[in-house]
Amino acid sequence: MSTKTSPAIDPVKLDRLAEVAVRTGLNLQEGQDLILSASVTALPLVRKIVEHAYKAGAGLVTPILSDDQTALARYRYGHDAGFDRAAGWMFDGMAQAYDKGAARLAVAGGDPMLLANEDPDKVARANKAMALAYTPARERITQFKTNWSIVAYPDPAWARLVSPDLPEDEAVHVLAEAIFAASRVSDDSAVASWAAHNAELGRRAAWLDGQNFAALHYTGPGTDLTIGLADGHKWIAGATEAQNGISCNPNIPTEEVFTTPHKLRVEGRVAATKPLSHQGTLIRDIAVEFKDGAITQATASSGESVLNKVLDTDEGARRLGEVALVPHASPISQSGLLFYNTLFDENAASHIALGQCYSTCFHRGETMDSDEIARRGGNASAIHIDWMIGSDQIDIDGITQSGERVPVMRKGAWAN
Amino acid sequence: MSTKTSPAIDPVKLDRLAEVAVRTGLNLQEGQDLILSASVTALPLVRKIVEHAYKAGAGLVTPILSDDQTALARYRYGHDAGFDRAAGWMFDGMAQAYDKGAARLAVAGGDPMLLANEDPDKVARANKAMALAYTPARERITQFKTNWSIVAYPDPAWARLVSPDLPEDEAVHVLAEAIFAASRVSDDSAVASWAAHNAELGRRAAWLDGQNFAALHYTGPGTDLTIGLADGHKWIAGATEAQNGISCNPNIPTEEVFTTPHKLRVEGRVAATKPLSHQGTLIRDIAVEFKDGAITQATASSGESVLNKVLDTDEGARRLGEVALVPHASPISQSGLLFYNTLFDENAASHIALGQCYSTCFHRGETMDSDEIARRGGNASAIHIDWMIGSDQIDIDGITQSGERVPVMRKGAWAN
Ligand SMILES: [Zn+2]
Ligand SMILES: [Zn+2]
Ligand SMILES: [Zn+2]
Ligand SMILES: [Zn+2]
Repeated sequence: MSTKTSPAIDPVKLDRLAEVAVRTGLNLQEGQDLILSASVTALPLVRKIVEHAYKAGAGLVTPILSDDQTALARYRYGHDAGFDRAAGWMFDGMAQAYDKGAARLAVAGGDPMLLANEDPDKVARANKAMALAYTPARERITQFKTNWSIVAYPDPAWARLVSPDLPEDEAVHVLAEAIFAASRVSDDSAVASWAAHNAELGRRAAWLDGQNFAALHYTGPGTDLTIGLADGHKWIAGATEAQNGISCNPNIPTEEVFTTPHKLRVEGRVAATKPLSHQGTLIRDIAVEFKDGAITQATASSGESVLNKVLDTDEGARRLGEVALVPHASPISQSGLLFYNTLFDENAASHIALGQCYSTCFHRGETMDSDEIARRGGNASAIHIDWMIGSDQIDIDGITQSGERVPVMRKGAWAN
Repeated sequence: MSTKTSPAIDPVKLDRLAEVAVRTGLNLQEGQDLILSASVTALPLVRKIVEHAYKAGAGLVTPILSDDQTALARYRYGHDAGFDRAAGWMFDGMAQAYDKGAARLAVAGGDPMLLANEDPDKVARANKAMALAYTPARERITQFKTNWSIVAYPDPAWARLVSPDLPEDEAVHVLAEAIFAASRVSDDSAVASWAAHNAELGRRAAWLDGQNFAALHYTGPGTDLTIGLADGHKWIAGATEAQNGISCNPNIPTEEVFTTPHKLRVEGRVAATKPLSHQGTLIRDIAVEFKDGAITQATASSGESVLNKVLDTDEGARRLGEVALVPHASPISQSGLLFYNTLFDENAASHIALGQCYSTCFHRGETMDSDEIARRGGNASAIHIDWMIGSDQIDIDGITQSGERVPVMRKGAWAN
């Protein structure tokens, strides 16, 4: 195993990405512990992050490294009875660590198509067991009990998927540069750029909050959808103050302005505008119909069985937990790449998410228990899966509490 | 990162080592989960082990991968206040997983000299915090609550230490072949070889048990040492039946026949016959004196401060928890290599261990609580560190309960 970074990846920008992850993404505090999860292929970034975390005064940094090949071996050689198991002991421990103050950083990467050829029933069972076992840890993240963030590393397998016609080194270079641009580390004022970007996103969220829309209405090819918003919903963008008082940027990159839809008030039909890469399966051309907030019918040109298994995870899996607005002019959209990765593709287009809502997307959400969140229309589920419904052909109107229409987006751009 | 095995490592023997680890080392059962810890440099072996584990019917295999460079970053960049921390949440979770039936495999490897140039005070503080946090998990292992094993992988940094005058590829080849020979996987009847070896070790242990010696007396250069044996001590070798009823080989390789000394009945002086590699520091030429079971004075030609910090870990750290007999003719001794790794070097020479005893080294030990073990002379500590005192110049007599002398070893060879 080489411990050197690929020459296709600019080491200066990689170092800046690690610094932005620690300083802006996590805003890691002196003495704070950090749990860092990544694929072994991302080791060059992991090592830089660990270095910056300790320089920032981290207590103990614990990397949790995964390996695609051993994950695949389970499907190739594992006996059938083993697919309902998950490492609950580890996820419970992580939840415990967050309660004791540890921050959390995930490095996205790995091969998005890893499980594409495996038995979808086994994939769904393993994912469901994982999602259930991960619930205590996931709840602490979605509820921002601690400061957390996600950044991405240009894994060679991911790069080959994004640029299938290029030799591997060139593909890695293209993906690396796209990640660096989207993550705003291309020039040497990265931490300052992030401060300006957070301020602009904050202004958008404040305007939407001031409108207090009852619903959003989407029209476009294959789409005529009304999404009611939750009672007391709050628009969020950029930096978020976690319950431990630390302001973090949970997604690097981030372009979205998002809130909680009402789980019972979604009506109409919507067509996805990008494929959804879900745990190794690519789901293409998703089209669904909603009635009373629930998906009543779902089709896809590929991956339809995986999609329907996802929707059957639990009661909340066919309802919405997030609605997010992203201008088509976002730097990620302008890169022209399909990343096959939600962290990037969701920041190229307006999107919605199946499953769990964020309690932070309510005014005074930190004071609400799960019953109150449910009464206000907040959805609950073991899953949270974003999928893209925005493009330069989508118009969005806000519908005020008194029934008036206010243009929000036109042809994928902010209307004001 | 290359995902291919180094050409210096025979892939057929590597595959056999993985199979012996799963079938003989762990004796992994259908449906049993496995926690597998290793350095990322050992990924080629980890992947083979995961494959064999799933083929043997493993439920879920969870690899825990560590990285030397991130471990080092803590010492290079970490603030002083962080060195008393440990990932207790992970070790507690492992203990929980063992209680629920998971087996445990550790792959030894990594750079033995990693921390050699770091501040010994920080190394000692970090090790102590780790040892304390790891106590619940370690107790389940030392008490054989579950089946467990250790195997080794020829890490390049380790190989360079063993063969400093060879180019890296040749050094890796030499170490790989030595590991394969010591682990008895050089020919294609590896699992059968292990059955025969276990039977031979079992005969030695049965003879020693029949003698029920009160003490062993060692003489040789720098050594005149009497080690009293614990009341009700039991000699163990090769395979061990864990408390879950599964017979496992906890060390691959293993040549030793060992039992529990009496923590209060060790007298005299002893000189180590090989350097001790402890958490990255090489301690050379250890010489100690015992009185009433405790080390009253300890010297070393290098690493003496680390040695004395180890002895100060807790009350039990200066007393013995294990005494082990290994003939100088063992295959590992005959390799002529100094491995700088206890798993190998302890199987090249008779040795003793500071710290925690094994409750399995008592007749009916599984029925005893820690008070009864202590009354019988069993030692307790957060550490268990083996060091080598055997050579072809050491004679050992057994002293019977009635005070007679019985030759056990002469010039490092079994006397009968
Ligand atoms: Zn989103
Ligand atoms: Zn989302
Ligand atoms: Zn031993
Ligand atoms: Zn030992």
